[in-house]
Amino acid sequence: MGDKSPNPMASKENDPATTPGPGDDALRTAEAHSHVERMESLAALAGKTGHDLNNFLMAILGNTSLAMMDLTEEDGHYRYLKQVEQTANRASDFARELLTFAGKARCAFREVDLGALIREMEMLLETTLTNKCELVYELAGDLPSIQADAAQLRIIVTNLLRNCCESMEATGGRIVIRTGRLELSGREFLYLPRSHSENDFVFLELKDCGIGMDNSQVKHMFDPFFSTKAKGRGRGLANVYGIVRAHLGNIIVESAPNAGTSVKILFPPSDRFKGASPQLFPSMA
Amino acid sequence: MGDKSPNPMASKENDPATTPGPGDDALRTAEAHSHVERMESLAALAGKTGHDLNNFLMAILGNTSLAMMDLTEEDGHYRYLKQVEQTANRASDFARELLTFAGKARCAFREVDLGALIREMEMLLETTLTNKCELVYELAGDLPSIQADAAQLRIIVTNLLRNCCESMEATGGRIVIRTGRLELSGREFLYLPRSHSENDFVFLELKDCGIGMDNSQVKHMFDPFFSTKAKGRGRGLANVYGIVRAHLGNIIVESAPNAGTSVKILFPPSDRFKGASPQLFPSMA
Repeated sequence: MGDKSPNPMASKENDPATTPGPGDDALRTAEAHSHVERMESLAALAGKTGHDLNNFLMAILGNTSLAMMDLTEEDGHYRYLKQVEQTANRASDFARELLTFAGKARCAFREVDLGALIREMEMLLETTLTNKCELVYELAGDLPSIQADAAQLRIIVTNLLRNCCESMEATGGRIVIRTGRLELSGREFLYLPRSHSENDFVFLELKDCGIGMDNSQVKHMFDPFFSTKAKGRGRGLANVYGIVRAHLGNIIVESAPNAGTSVKILFPPSDRFKGASPQLFPSMA
Repeated sequence: MGDKSPNPMASKENDPATTPGPGDDALRTAEAHSHVERMESLAALAGKTGHDLNNFLMAILGNTSLAMMDLTEEDGHYRYLKQVEQTANRASDFARELLTFAGKARCAFREVDLGALIREMEMLLETTLTNKCELVYELAGDLPSIQADAAQLRIIVTNLLRNCCESMEATGGRIVIRTGRLELSGREFLYLPRSHSENDFVFLELKDCGIGMDNSQVKHMFDPFFSTKAKGRGRGLANVYGIVRAHLGNIIVESAPNAGTSVKILFPPSDRFKGASPQLFPSMA
């Protein structure tokens, strides 16, 4: 399909030439399902690979440090073993990236007020902005709290904001950071599996008026290590996906070339999260 | 979709309740495309991961062997470094598995007569058979040769045969091994991207009358490391996929629960292969 496919993100209302036929719904549903299935397959492979790699590295690092125990920097072997250790540590970072994408980063969950978290970040966010960009806050009052790792949430916000700024590099403009509640209709193009009985979410949205993305770029924007990413859609996004995954959340993206991008991160409200767990999340066969 | 989706492998003729509507073709095409895209994404991730892992391991193994150079088994460090070496070698096997799945195994391509190769394997294949299974050869005469690594082809044949036998464990029966030529119609549910101008292939088919697979199992049968595989569809199949990928080939599977499985491996005829190369193969965005 790629660019030739009907863009599931584009709204039909803007295109009077498109009259939705009876087959469109089935096609849209199939495409949305395939998309989630592809992401699930990537997460499964990344999780398995990161896990196995970690086991190898633990054995390598353990034995290397035993071998180094009674050595000093003057010993001839020392620098070789130091190299082994440094390489194994870099490989561990790589394994951690894979596990983060797979939603298996260690999270310290606690009750978080999303709006308060963003207000606390204001100073930090202003320094992230490039000078032609302006940040507008639209934070809903009275949002339910979510269960989250605040440090990981900050990674989500700064990564998304950095991508907004990069996509507006040439033009500058307004970036809106918004929170609110959202009820899924079932017609959204999501990145993670959803439980059909649970439709209400707290969302965090970052919306820019930058260069936007075509359908294929939108589909692949959270893929790990892909080199064909659109400018302004960098590597940090695979981490964003993984963190959202670990938080039992979901993602909705709306974008079109030269029409900006909106990324909505959905979190289950705190009371619902407590009943679930990352392990119990419905997995795709 | 999983089991609820229209089975793209099932033939419509067997189901009088299914009247193909105008939307069916689009749905079928979309599903086939998504399937290839998912496999491509897995191959890209496996390739990237295997490649990076290999680089780390080369540095680890190189420095470990330098450190071990003037040590003997009597030295206290020796056994720790031996452990490092052994672990890194196991990790290298893991990296090789990832690279094989990604179609990046080293292949020594030469002109191969598929029929002759199978006849040479007869003795070997008979020993692979479990005692209630019978192997029937239907080898086409006069097939064009293919460019292949004969050792890798043998891995394909023995892996597929082993899977046939496992799926017929309870019942036994006939397994057909067949070769021939095949023209793609464009309606096949494939596992690898195809170039639309090149439709003729030499095929190798293994067909059993075993327990078969449902749609979801068929889709995932070549996935790397998936633990939810159907019985009789083991890990070797990810290697089969990767070898076919390295050979610029393709795969067609027809199966249904309790109705056996046919796996057709397609190879471009030798003259076409020479013009292409694994690097020039059309990649999916």
